[in-house]
Amino acid sequence: MSSSFGHLFRISTFGESHGGAVGVVIDGCPPQVPITEAEIQAELDRRRPGQSKITTARAELDVCEIVSGVFEGRTLGTPICIMVRNKDARATDYEPFKDVYRPSHADYTYDAKYGIRNWRGGGRASARETIGRVAAGALAKKVLQLHAGIEILSWVSRVGRIEANVDGEKLTMADIEKNIVRCPDDAVAQQMIDLISKVKSNGDSIGGTVDCIARNVPAGLGEPVFDKLEADLAKAMLSLPASKAFEIGSGYEGTYLLGSEHNDLFYNPGDRIATRTNRSGGVQGGITNGESINIRVGFKPVATILQPQMTVNSAGEEVELMPRGRHDPCVLPRAVPMVEAMMALVLCDHLMRQKALSGSIVKEPNQATP
Amino acid sequence: MSSSFGHLFRISTFGESHGGAVGVVIDGCPPQVPITEAEIQAELDRRRPGQSKITTARAELDVCEIVSGVFEGRTLGTPICIMVRNKDARATDYEPFKDVYRPSHADYTYDAKYGIRNWRGGGRASARETIGRVAAGALAKKVLQLHAGIEILSWVSRVGRIEANVDGEKLTMADIEKNIVRCPDDAVAQQMIDLISKVKSNGDSIGGTVDCIARNVPAGLGEPVFDKLEADLAKAMLSLPASKAFEIGSGYEGTYLLGSEHNDLFYNPGDRIATRTNRSGGVQGGITNGESINIRVGFKPVATILQPQMTVNSAGEEVELMPRGRHDPCVLPRAVPMVEAMMALVLCDHLMRQKALSGSIVKEPNQATP
Amino acid sequence: MSSSFGHLFRISTFGESHGGAVGVVIDGCPPQVPITEAEIQAELDRRRPGQSKITTARAELDVCEIVSGVFEGRTLGTPICIMVRNKDARATDYEPFKDVYRPSHADYTYDAKYGIRNWRGGGRASARETIGRVAAGALAKKVLQLHAGIEILSWVSRVGRIEANVDGEKLTMADIEKNIVRCPDDAVAQQMIDLISKVKSNGDSIGGTVDCIARNVPAGLGEPVFDKLEADLAKAMLSLPASKAFEIGSGYEGTYLLGSEHNDLFYNPGDRIATRTNRSGGVQGGITNGESINIRVGFKPVATILQPQMTVNSAGEEVELMPRGRHDPCVLPRAVPMVEAMMALVLCDHLMRQKALSGSIVKEPNQATP
Amino acid sequence: MSSSFGHLFRISTFGESHGGAVGVVIDGCPPQVPITEAEIQAELDRRRPGQSKITTARAELDVCEIVSGVFEGRTLGTPICIMVRNKDARATDYEPFKDVYRPSHADYTYDAKYGIRNWRGGGRASARETIGRVAAGALAKKVLQLHAGIEILSWVSRVGRIEANVDGEKLTMADIEKNIVRCPDDAVAQQMIDLISKVKSNGDSIGGTVDCIARNVPAGLGEPVFDKLEADLAKAMLSLPASKAFEIGSGYEGTYLLGSEHNDLFYNPGDRIATRTNRSGGVQGGITNGESINIRVGFKPVATILQPQMTVNSAGEEVELMPRGRHDPCVLPRAVPMVEAMMALVLCDHLMRQKALSGSIVKEPNQATP
Repeated sequence: MSSSFGHLFRISTFGESHGGAVGVVIDGCPPQVPITEAEIQAELDRRRPGQSKITTARAELDVCEIVSGVFEGRTLGTPICIMVRNKDARATDYEPFKDVYRPSHADYTYDAKYGIRNWRGGGRASARETIGRVAAGALAKKVLQLHAGIEILSWVSRVGRIEANVDGEKLTMADIEKNIVRCPDDAVAQQMIDLISKVKSNGDSIGGTVDCIARNVPAGLGEPVFDKLEADLAKAMLSLPASKAFEIGSGYEGTYLLGSEHNDLFYNPGDRIATRTNRSGGVQGGITNGESINIRVGFKPVATILQPQMTVNSAGEEVELMPRGRHDPCVLPRAVPMVEAMMALVLCDHLMRQKALSGSIVKEPNQATP
Repeated sequence: MSSSFGHLFRISTFGESHGGAVGVVIDGCPPQVPITEAEIQAELDRRRPGQSKITTARAELDVCEIVSGVFEGRTLGTPICIMVRNKDARATDYEPFKDVYRPSHADYTYDAKYGIRNWRGGGRASARETIGRVAAGALAKKVLQLHAGIEILSWVSRVGRIEANVDGEKLTMADIEKNIVRCPDDAVAQQMIDLISKVKSNGDSIGGTVDCIARNVPAGLGEPVFDKLEADLAKAMLSLPASKAFEIGSGYEGTYLLGSEHNDLFYNPGDRIATRTNRSGGVQGGITNGESINIRVGFKPVATILQPQMTVNSAGEEVELMPRGRHDPCVLPRAVPMVEAMMALVLCDHLMRQKALSGSIVKEPNQATP
Repeated sequence: MSSSFGHLFRISTFGESHGGAVGVVIDGCPPQVPITEAEIQAELDRRRPGQSKITTARAELDVCEIVSGVFEGRTLGTPICIMVRNKDARATDYEPFKDVYRPSHADYTYDAKYGIRNWRGGGRASARETIGRVAAGALAKKVLQLHAGIEILSWVSRVGRIEANVDGEKLTMADIEKNIVRCPDDAVAQQMIDLISKVKSNGDSIGGTVDCIARNVPAGLGEPVFDKLEADLAKAMLSLPASKAFEIGSGYEGTYLLGSEHNDLFYNPGDRIATRTNRSGGVQGGITNGESINIRVGFKPVATILQPQMTVNSAGEEVELMPRGRHDPCVLPRAVPMVEAMMALVLCDHLMRQKALSGSIVKEPNQATP
Repeated sequence: MSSSFGHLFRISTFGESHGGAVGVVIDGCPPQVPITEAEIQAELDRRRPGQSKITTARAELDVCEIVSGVFEGRTLGTPICIMVRNKDARATDYEPFKDVYRPSHADYTYDAKYGIRNWRGGGRASARETIGRVAAGALAKKVLQLHAGIEILSWVSRVGRIEANVDGEKLTMADIEKNIVRCPDDAVAQQMIDLISKVKSNGDSIGGTVDCIARNVPAGLGEPVFDKLEADLAKAMLSLPASKAFEIGSGYEGTYLLGSEHNDLFYNPGDRIATRTNRSGGVQGGITNGESINIRVGFKPVATILQPQMTVNSAGEEVELMPRGRHDPCVLPRAVPMVEAMMALVLCDHLMRQKALSGSIVKEPNQATP
């Protein structure tokens, strides 16, 4: 089950970075959802390498094909397979690493687990695996929008020590996409780009954070006690390559406060139950309360750097690794659509779970037979 | 599936805070594991309310009964049900909250989701639900110890702004249990106790962090790509009441670094492959690398405070809430066994998953028939 | 997962025949369903041993307790634990079998699998495990009745070679319960009772079949391709103790026919789409078509007989087994509520799955935001 | 989850009969298993249409591609995607059925469930979906052979009323493949072929049974109580298109017997525990006992016949259906590899589950740390 995610809206990704193709099978998507390859491609284009000067130079167009499950532009309710053929496979780049464990990569652990490894690229540990997630996420976003009007937006909130100041409630997709670092705070976006460019020219990499908001979420999504919404979101985000930390709502900042400072007081703005603050991040007791969901994901500096490093080979001998080729100095701009996709997948699954419980106001026994 | 956790070593908890009982069914535990009610009780005693002056005064002994699955002191391989009867049920304490939504509690969201709620206590959202987790965790720890020699230890690493300095590699259970706040750093433990006492006397609450280490973990546990070990740990920890944040290894701190500063270099200390630093937290590409697993969990200040707060009732009217009764000023000391339990449950599940893949060095075709 | 069944309406049974208790945890039941211990007890009474002269003399009242998940007579949406304490445990009856493998029992296979076995009774292989199923089935039947008006009835259709002739469409529960063999065909019921009585007095046992019908089932339940309704029903029925065969609709009889004889022709009786015959058993392509679901389950003669038999002990030595104590000459009358329960559990799960897909007629893109 | 099967060795099929492709993703296959496209193709060739004069004339070569998960001829432990492009898509054949519900097909039920249907062929209800199962089964058979020496063989045991007499214990694959009806009983094989040919020329179809044996199965596979081996097998077989009935061991015949006639007596042939008869079909209490597993599956006459039939259209109007094109007069010869595949998938899953429990003879507490 390790390559599957979700319970009712369930995805299974497949493919290695240098195999024939990567892709995803989506099982459980509601029928009659209008979807096109163009809509999926638009999300894949936000994820693809080579999209700007601050990402890797590996130039893959990542053209998707809907292989099954869609008929005359609408989903059939049956499994949807979406596939992207691998193209720019410069296996020779990886020849030197065939027997050498790259530091902080998954080479060694894959060998330890499986006793075999596709050394032509990162195999399943490559970020190419996320193509399937982003493709499935495009569909999940469509379902959320059409069935519930839910909107999801992600952005780069920090690069190294450069921090953005963003009000998620008012954000639009255009605000995020207006620059290549996907940070809607004009005051710092160019600084972020400059920092990443400098890090890239040094053959180094840099970490940071991505924030994500889900707006117009109905109350009642999430299932106690293990499938709390924040628990499923945490798993979703920590399953992304290079992620190391997760917060919801007030997060770590909230852990320094007193309860009297932290509690979100309820009030009635006229026609509904709302909270004056949102330190809960839209989730209480694992269930959405109708406020926006706010999360933050921390990404480490990616492990591939173009600098010599000491390591060991598969024989256990210490060797110097001299990397070459291309690298992605900062995963954050490309992680934005990945975080959105994972948020969409979690919410779509829980929206369907809640529907399964619906019609729950049962008839009285004597009204049972219609 | 919302009350179940794990894939092969699978637990299902049941029970509300003021119903007949709380408990757990463990399905998939290997047979022949020696386990006694006393061993489980020892862990429950670390979790129970009323254990010290800095926890809630609610005095429950939480005596457990093994209802099934154990025969002559050993597990049968069949489902193990462990149950604790609820005793100290002062439902009258909750009478005032029957129709009032307590701020940052799950009252409102349960109503929004289910249209019905056990208002006598927190229902499933009560921390009493974790009794089943801690009981199951006691068994999981036993399996990990006997099958693989794995050791798990948790401690309070920060209360409010008071931070401990602890070397997890050298820690013992005795170091943790020597004080009531479960912080092994003598320099700050008393300050933490004093702070919590002061917060309690103000009828307030305070947050902080719990750290956890797993030592002697074999390489190869964890399954790419969605069931990465850190992903399953993140879900496990964010499913605990009041948790808001999760980090593994270098966590947020690592997101400020450059790749050249952050990578863990491999070396050979003589007979194995090791890393000189452990910013990966023992996990690379979602799979353990043989180093210790290090995680941190952030807990918010608990929502129950003994101060008046504005809120709304189920009719949507704004009302003042005047709390009374007992409260837990700081969840951290009691969260320590919960975090250990969840770490144990995740590792036990992945240990069994890895066994399922074992024997993987297949015979050559011509050797197939023995 | 071996002791769990169902995907959304999910049950987990626990308990051995001579342990402390047997029971079930039901996770995923819709909230607000009215249910009482008396309603569950009524079904358990149909299953319990000692209910008539043609069942085992083991006299257990099997009194149930709802331990969690029900509040003021209605389900909370959280896990419902129902438990029955074991009473009539004459472990001495089993002392002679401690090291001897009873023929066609599970003694040997449990030892082979687990290396340990609760020899005081059949352990998990005992039919006592079905108490949890029948209790959960009582709740599932209630949900089906209230949410969809679905009715489920089972009856004994054959004992040995004595076959009943029953029209399931017109049957009532009273028709079935009017005699102790639970066969509504008056012409043969007494013959069946006489046959079982004779077999019992010989210390022998006898097999036969149970039929089951579900009426007023909406079209659209069941999920292609692996979770076809008939596939889930087959699994449900073959998981019952002593079951050996399963048929749906025309079953084996249909396999002798030509397609031109077998096809169910559609017609329109006025206001809906119906079929003139129902050889499909209410299911086409794995999905209900609105006709009644008809299935048949074959049960072998139970393995416990009061006659000497040759066997081996755990040392591999051949020994003669001289049984003593009590035995159930024919499982069929007590299997009736079990078959009903499993049918109800499968349908309840698929009813909820179908609800999860509902609301599937999506709004057009330009209508997305309300 | 409806298109997924298995728990540890888990497959997900995708694709409609007239979409771009059909295929399967296998997640959880052990690493290092040698497998080639040729081995998979060999099984697909046994399944493909147009292979002989007694199957449909639809001529598809069904050439497979391993898209991911295999590296240098061995499995990687990561998801294996195998795909077959659809070729012979004569959608015009289906034009007349666009709005007409073919009797005993899934047209109406798919419409009732999803409100949308790929009317160009049978969509997911088409037997083309089984391509993915057979491809995955080829891999599962390889794992079973290499890890445990298990052998699986299926054959046609009855067509209409023509019944074969076969001793499964001595059978070889060559015995089965020596004629086009896949019946190893020379005395009746030609009669079966003649009957099917005659039925075909009448534009009709005919049902029958397929038997399957698994030999050299270790004791201990199968998990009580819901995932009994026979329960998982029943589900597997009833999920195949056109299947209507399932038996294990003595099956229905056994339900006519007395316990004293039916019990399988244990004995010791010298070095192991065996049974003198095998009415249990190799499974007792849901767990294998080391004897061969014997099952039988009943298939109805397929619904597509080339004769006029009355039915209704989607507007509810009664119309005459005049079929045209090609049809498969008897599913049985092509069902043989499907039944083998499903048997292999179930056994492979349970073999891995049993490995997960292994190493269960735990060290004593004082030996815990190595």
